[in-house]
Amino acid sequence: MSVLKGAAIFGQSGGPTSVINASAAGVFLTALQQDCITKVYGAAHGIKGILEEQFYDMGMEDKYELELLKTTPSSALGSVRYKLADPDVDDTDFKRLLEVFKKYNIRYFFYNGGNDSMDTCNKVSKFMKQAGYECRCMGVPKTIDNDLFGTDHSPGYGSAAKYVATSTMEVFHDARVYDTGMVAILEVMGRNAGWLTAATALAAYKGQGPDLIYVPELPFDDEKFLSDVKRVYENNNKVIVAVSEGLRYADGTYVADSGVRDSFGHAQLGGVAYKLADMAKNALGTKVRAIEFSLLQRCAAHWASKADVEEAFMAGQTAVLKAVEGLTDYCIGFEREAGEEYKCVPKLIKLSDIANTERKLPREWINEEGNFVTKEFVDYALPLIQGESSPPIENGLPRFAKLKKVLATK
Amino acid sequence: MSVLKGAAIFGQSGGPTSVINASAAGVFLTALQQDCITKVYGAAHGIKGILEEQFYDMGMEDKYELELLKTTPSSALGSVRYKLADPDVDDTDFKRLLEVFKKYNIRYFFYNGGNDSMDTCNKVSKFMKQAGYECRCMGVPKTIDNDLFGTDHSPGYGSAAKYVATSTMEVFHDARVYDTGMVAILEVMGRNAGWLTAATALAAYKGQGPDLIYVPELPFDDEKFLSDVKRVYENNNKVIVAVSEGLRYADGTYVADSGVRDSFGHAQLGGVAYKLADMAKNALGTKVRAIEFSLLQRCAAHWASKADVEEAFMAGQTAVLKAVEGLTDYCIGFEREAGEEYKCVPKLIKLSDIANTERKLPREWINEEGNFVTKEFVDYALPLIQGESSPPIENGLPRFAKLKKVLATK
Repeated sequence: MSVLKGAAIFGQSGGPTSVINASAAGVFLTALQQDCITKVYGAAHGIKGILEEQFYDMGMEDKYELELLKTTPSSALGSVRYKLADPDVDDTDFKRLLEVFKKYNIRYFFYNGGNDSMDTCNKVSKFMKQAGYECRCMGVPKTIDNDLFGTDHSPGYGSAAKYVATSTMEVFHDARVYDTGMVAILEVMGRNAGWLTAATALAAYKGQGPDLIYVPELPFDDEKFLSDVKRVYENNNKVIVAVSEGLRYADGTYVADSGVRDSFGHAQLGGVAYKLADMAKNALGTKVRAIEFSLLQRCAAHWASKADVEEAFMAGQTAVLKAVEGLTDYCIGFEREAGEEYKCVPKLIKLSDIANTERKLPREWINEEGNFVTKEFVDYALPLIQGESSPPIENGLPRFAKLKKVLATK
Repeated sequence: MSVLKGAAIFGQSGGPTSVINASAAGVFLTALQQDCITKVYGAAHGIKGILEEQFYDMGMEDKYELELLKTTPSSALGSVRYKLADPDVDDTDFKRLLEVFKKYNIRYFFYNGGNDSMDTCNKVSKFMKQAGYECRCMGVPKTIDNDLFGTDHSPGYGSAAKYVATSTMEVFHDARVYDTGMVAILEVMGRNAGWLTAATALAAYKGQGPDLIYVPELPFDDEKFLSDVKRVYENNNKVIVAVSEGLRYADGTYVADSGVRDSFGHAQLGGVAYKLADMAKNALGTKVRAIEFSLLQRCAAHWASKADVEEAFMAGQTAVLKAVEGLTDYCIGFEREAGEEYKCVPKLIKLSDIANTERKLPREWINEEGNFVTKEFVDYALPLIQGESSPPIENGLPRFAKLKKVLATK
C-alpha cells in the first residue's frame, strides 16, 4: 500500500437529495482525520467550482456544522449539471483541471452524483493517469431515482421513498374523506425508472395506498388506464393512482408531451398528473385531483430514512478510506448481506461499469397487467425506509447546517 | 347546574386538517367518561350521517385507537360539505334531525368545522330549542385557514403552518442549488385569508424563506409582481415567492381564472403558481418552478405541531366538559394569556358570533408594499408551531388509527 500525500477535493453534482449532504459529511469528517490528506476542499457547484478555482477550505468549518450536514437537505456546496467533453475531442477542461490539481496538490478526487457524474469522475481519472499525475478518483453515489447500476440501491432513494410512501398514506386519508366520487393522481419523480413511484406500494402494503401504479418501464396506454380507473371507480367510488413523471406511450413520446402547459419544458414542470386527471374527469365526470410531490420528495430532510442517512454517510466515509488505502476508479455501492435481518455493506463498483448505465425496475416486480408492483418489490424496499431521521429543531423549525464557506487560496 | 342525561353525537365537517381527529379524540375520550352521557356516537360524514342514521357507536372502539386519533390526519369519521337550508324556508332536514335525536335520545351535539359548520351547529340548536327539545350544541373549531372569528387562532393552523414553513425551508435549499437563475413560486392554500401563506415568513425568519409573499387580503397586480420579482432576480439571481391560491385582481377576479388548465375548476386545482411562474418565465427568460403544497399541507400528520395537537384535543375536551356543565350554543376558542411565555387557554365564543364570519390577516401585519408580512406576524405565529408531533411508526411508516366503525342500531 503506497501512501499518497496531498489534498482532497469533493464535489456534488446533479439533482439534490435529502441525504447527499450526509455523504458529504462522511467524506469531510473522514478525510479531515487522515494524516496523508493535507487539505480538504469542497468544490462550489461540482466540477465547475474546480475549473473556476471556487472551492472551500473545509478545515475551516466547525465540526458541529459538518455533523449537521447529515440532516441538511440539498447540496450544501451547490450542485451543477455539467458534462465534460470527450477529452479526445476537446481536452480544454481536463487540462485546466490538471492545472488546478497541480496548483493545490490535489491527490484525492471524490465526486458525488448519479451515472453522469460517475462518467465525469471516470474521465477525470483517465486523463490524470495519461498525464502521469497520480490522483485517486472515487465516486460517491446519489440518486432518488435508484437507477444506478451494480448496487443494491442508492443513497437518497430510501428517504425519498419514505417521504413518498408517508405522504401517499396521508393523502389516502385526505382524498377519501367525502362520500362523493374522487380520482386522485399522484405524480412522482422518475423519467426512465419507476423505483420511486413504486414506493407508493409501501403505503398500499399498509392498506392506505394507491389502487393503480404506472411506471415508465412499460409503455403507457390511455385506453388501458381509463378502463383500469373505471373498474376501480365503479367498485369503490374512489381511485388513487400513482404515476411516474416520465410515462411514455409505445411510440416513445412522453404522456405529458401533449399537455396543456406548453410554455414550460415538461421535464422541468411535470404535468402527467394533470393530464391524466383531466382524462379521468372527462371519462367519469367525477371530481379529480392532481398532486405533484415536486421538489418536496427529494428534499424532505425532516422525514428522512435513518437507514438511508447512515448508508449515505458510510458511502462517503468508505470512499475516503478506500482511496487512502490505495484504491482508485471505483464508485461505492451497496450489497445486502444474506440472512433474515437487513444488513447493508459497502462494495466497490468500477467507475467504467457504473458510468452512463441505467438500472430499471425488473419486469417481474411489475404485475402482469402493468398497473401495480409485486410483493417482491415491497420486500426489497421496506428495509430502506426504516428509522426516522430529522434535523435538530430550534424554535419549532429545522436547524440546518450553516457553512462558513471560506474560499481556498493559494 | 342541571344534569342532562342522554347520548352525545359528534360530527366532522369541511376540509380536513392534520389535527381534526385530535379534537375528535378530545370529544370521544372525554364524553365516554361522563356519567350523564349514556352513549357516544360518531357521525359518518357529518350532518349527513345524522340525517341518514349512519353513525358509529364509539364505545365499541379500543381506547388505544381513539388515542391514536391524536396523530391520524384527515377526518376519521368522514367529512361533508353540506349547508342546511334556512329552516324558515325549508325545515325538512331539521325535522329529520329532531326525529333522529329523539329516537336515540341525543342530548349533546358537537360539531367540528369552520365557520359554515358553526352556522350549521347554530341552526340546529335554534331549531331544537323552538321544538322544545333540550339539546346542548357546541362547536369545535378547525381550519388550516385560521380565519375563524373571535379566537386567537384555530386548531389545524399551527400544524399546517409548521409543515409549510419546514417545506419552504427545504425547498429554499433545493431550488437554489445550481448557480443558474431560478424563480420558484410556492402555492399555499387560502382562498380569502393569507394566514397560511404568511407562515412561509417563518422560514424567512430562519433566513431560508421566500423573498416575496402575496396574500389575498390585498389586490394582486401583475405589473407590481413582475417588477418585484425582477428586482430580487437582478440582485440574487434566485427568487422564491409564496402566494395564496386565492389571489385576486382589483376587480375581484381570481388570478388563476385566466389560467391554462381550464377543463378543471380552479378552486379545486389551483393554478396560481403555474400562471405566475409562466409570467416570470416570459418576463425574465429564466428557469421557473411552480410548487403546490396541495393536500399535503393539510394532512401531514407526520410533522404536526405538538402545540396544535394538544390544543385541538383540548378544544374537543372543553366542548364536552362545558356542555356537561350546562352550557350550549358556544364554540370553543383560544385566548393567549398575557406574559412572556406562550400559554393558550380555552374561551367561549357564541355560535351566532362565529358563524359565517371570516377573519383576515390584519393590514398592519402586511408590509407597506404589500409583498411580505411583518415581524408582528412572526411573533404571533411562532408559538403555534412549537413541538413535533408524529404518529407511532410501524415498520418505517406511520401507524394511523383504525376504527372498527360499528354502526349504531336502535
